[in-house]
Parts: sequence; structure tokens; C-alpha cells
Amino acid sequence: MGSVITIEQKILKKNNELAEENRQRFDSHGVFVISLVSSPGSGKTSLLEQSLTILKKNLRVAVIEGDVQTDRDAQRIAAADVPVVQIVTNGTCHLEARMVQDALREMDLDEIDLLFIENIGNLICPASYELGEHLRVVIMSTTEGEDKPLKYPAMFRRSQVLVLNKVDLLPFLSYNLEEAKDFALRVNPALKIFETSCTTGHGIREWTEWLRSTARGRTWNVVSSLQ
Amino acid sequence: MGSVITIEQKILKKNNELAEENRQRFDSHGVFVISLVSSPGSGKTSLLEQSLTILKKNLRVAVIEGDVQTDRDAQRIAAADVPVVQIVTNGTCHLEARMVQDALREMDLDEIDLLFIENIGNLICPASYELGEHLRVVIMSTTEGEDKPLKYPAMFRRSQVLVLNKVDLLPFLSYNLEEAKDFALRVNPALKIFETSCTTGHGIREWTEWLRSTARGRTWNVVSSLQ
Repeated sequence: MGSVITIEQKILKKNNELAEENRQRFDSHGVFVISLVSSPGSGKTSLLEQSLTILKKNLRVAVIEGDVQTDRDAQRIAAADVPVVQIVTNGTCHLEARMVQDALREMDLDEIDLLFIENIGNLICPASYELGEHLRVVIMSTTEGEDKPLKYPAMFRRSQVLVLNKVDLLPFLSYNLEEAKDFALRVNPALKIFETSCTTGHGIREWTEWLRSTARGRTWNVVSSLQ
Repeated sequence: MGSVITIEQKILKKNNELAEENRQRFDSHGVFVISLVSSPGSGKTSLLEQSLTILKKNLRVAVIEGDVQTDRDAQRIAAADVPVVQIVTNGTCHLEARMVQDALREMDLDEIDLLFIENIGNLICPASYELGEHLRVVIMSTTEGEDKPLKYPAMFRRSQVLVLNKVDLLPFLSYNLEEAKDFALRVNPALKIFETSCTTGHGIREWTEWLRSTARGRTWNVVSSLQ
């Protein structure tokens, strides 16, 4: 299996190089890029729908949608009247930097302030592949149980933000929110945590406000570094 | 990337050979083997806990637990007073036949009628790796949305049974159960479907009864083929 590991390392190294190219390109156009990762069905697309409605009032927002099959999520995003490019991986379990590079051919970065990349629903494989994003956001829903950060630590370690979604269901679950947060912070003490419900809208404004101010700070940094 | 694909095919071919060895070994000992696959947090371990309590009254049951990290699930199973062997993959996103083979060294197959293998929480990668199981059961929870079979078709195509779990939450979700079943059957018309709740116990008896009679039928086949 030695040669397989070597090839895998080569692939990851090459991916990191392309991710760095992406990041430089995003920076030179002043685009702030957020990737979303989670299990299937944790609410990545629902969170996007809710966030886009608010963010697009003041910012030019666009989305890259990653899916193993179908363009169902891209259609949901397009319905929110936001530019969206779909990547269908045809079975591949994660997005890679080169796929993002291909998708960027369909976008005018000068027309975008904020770019979301929705990764494949998978808590394992996408952890290893940088895309060039400035921020990786992992979404975990209350219905999945508290212990996912302990069981899938790499993803929580390599994200900067945790969105705890579906908090509207808490009254109907035996779910300990504090324990879930404690597990997440045990794996990554620097995680910034939000609690949201895409059904009731709980926490969405706090999350989008934070995103807006973080993106603005980032853009300022980019501008000042260019002067 | 050509050489990578060739190596991947070699790995899958080798895995299938080992899976076939496993299957022959299970058959020669009259052990019926069920693997469980799903997203993280769909309820594989909870379904197991519920099922074991009932099944162990009449059958000698054992479990192989697959996890990326931690032995939390194995501890839950052990609490149900059932023999359990833990496989920790250390980052690998699926179980492989050789890992099962290693785990079998810790088990006496002559003392087992029914063996469950709980795979890694991942709707993509485990689809490609046979383990030697007789039955692959995919679990999908109502909180994940209806469209997972369309978005992750390989897993639903390569399973024989679908357990629709967490139906107790239906009153609190905008979830169309019939549409979810329709999507699943569109991908795999032969799927046998159960509806369960591990919180209320709904559907558990029907599922375990079916499992028991299927396992019994299987054992008879094995016995008669040996005569």
C-alpha cells in the first residue's frame, strides 16, 4: 500500500498548491470565501438559503454548489436569485481545489463580494482538501447526537466556525446542547459557535451579521495590503 | 491521474476477493451478517441497541463496530451485554473487508448466529466496499430531508433494506415520508423499507421479526446446501 500513500500525499500536495492559487485569486479580487461542510442533511443548503436572503441586500453574493449527483441544491439557491455554479462530482466524496478552479471560469470575481462553496455532505473526506476558502464552517444538527466532534475530529479541528443547526427541535430530543458544544471545543478550542434554526430563523441574523463584519474586516486587510 | 484510478481498481478488486472469503467463512459457520450504513447521526447505533435487546432473546448476536475515532459506540453496544469488537479506522472513511477479517480473529463464529457490522457514518465511500455481508441496510433519518437517495444514489442502489428512522419527529418537521420512499424506490425498486423510531420503539418489532425470519431462511439454505 506504500505507493498508494505516496500518490495520495502527492494529490494532497498538488491540491494545496491549487488551493493557494485560488486563495490568491480571491484576495486579488477582494472576494471573501466561505466553505460549508457537514453530514448529509444537516442543513447546509437551508442555512445558505436563509443567509443569502439577508446578505444579498448589502453584498454581492454567489455560490458554488457541490453534489455527488443532481443539481437539486443549485436549483434551490438559484430560486433565491443568487448566481450559482454547480459541481457534480459523479461519485467523488469531496470537492477539490481544481474543481473550484473549473467552476470559477463561469464566474466574474469582480462582481462578487462573498462566495459560498457548499461541499459534499460528508464529515470525513472533505476535511483533507483545502479549496482556497478563507473560512471553513462545519454545520452539525441537533438530531445527529452530541458526540460527532469526538467521532469525526479532523473536520472540527480544521474548521473555524461551528453552526449548531435545528435548535427548534431541541424540545423533542434528548440532546444536551452544552455537552455538544463542550465536545466541539475540546477538539478545537478556537471554534466560534452559532446556534441556528432555518425553520424558525433563530440565530440567523447573529450569524449573518458576524459573517458580514468578518468579510468586511478581511476586505479591508486585502485593500490595505495592496496600498 | 490514470495510475491512481488503476490502483483504486486494484484495491477494490482485492477488497472484493477478501469480502468473498469473508462470506464463505460466514456461510460455513452458519452466521448471517448484516451491515449498517448511513450518514453520521442517523441512528445506526440506536437501532442496533433496540434490535439487540429483542434479538438476543432467541439468537446469539455479535457486533463489529466501525468508527473513525473513539470506541463510544462499542461501549454502548457492550452495555447491551452483546459481544462487540471495535475497529477504529484512524481517519479512513469506510470499512474494508480486510479490517473485518482482522476483527474476526477476536470472534468465535461458532458461537454466533447473527453478526452486525456498523460501518463508518458516511453515505458515499462505504458503498464501494463489500465486507462479505449478506444484507446491507441503509438508514436514513427523517431529519435529513427527502432527497438523499437521489443525491447519494450508489449507497441506496447497493443496499437491500432501507430503515427510515426517527419517524417520531415527523409532527415537528416539514418532511414528506411518501416522497422520501418514492425517491428511494426510484433509485432502487427492490428496496425493502421499514419505518422506525428508536425513541418510541415504533416499527422495531416488525424490523427485528423480518430480520429473524430472513436470517433463519438463510441458515436453512446453508444447511441444505451442505447436505
